[in-house]
Amino acid sequence: MAKSIFYHAGCPVCVSAEQDIINLIGESNVEVVHLGDDQTRITEAEKAGIKSVPALVTPNGNVLHINYGASLEDVKG
Amino acid sequence: MAKSIFYHAGCPVCVSAEQDIINLIGESNVEVVHLGDDQTRITEAEKAGIKSVPALVTPNGNVLHINYGASLEDVKG
Repeated sequence: MAKSIFYHAGCPVCVSAEQDIINLIGESNVEVVHLGDDQTRITEAEKAGIKSVPALVTPNGNVLHINYGASLEDVKG
Repeated sequence: MAKSIFYHAGCPVCVSAEQDIINLIGESNVEVVHLGDDQTRITEAEKAGIKSVPALVTPNGNVLHINYGASLEDVKG
């Protein structure tokens, strides 16, 4: 199965959702990207359609915004 | 693995998210509840902490609100 990508920014809501997603999907099936630590990937996240974090991009490219931690604008700082 | 429960109300956002969740977690690992068709389960959803649909309750009881289809108040009609 192609990997999903989980984008987050280290917020409490993000960390909690990350654990839930890893438990549900399996750690080997999801790449975790911390946009606060790796701002070079913010553009990629925007192109995927992400508006807020945490968010999961599925293998077929759909975006699932999960709960609400922070807007992508806030992550850009 | 204990089952997750996916609550929705038949909205387009819900149906799309349902397919994504089933693809990610596997159909056998998630119970799908349509709150529009089965209003008797709205109380259960509220007790779980659900504020809007679609939402997924994980086996350990965490609520993941996914995207935003409708508030639970709207589902109650």
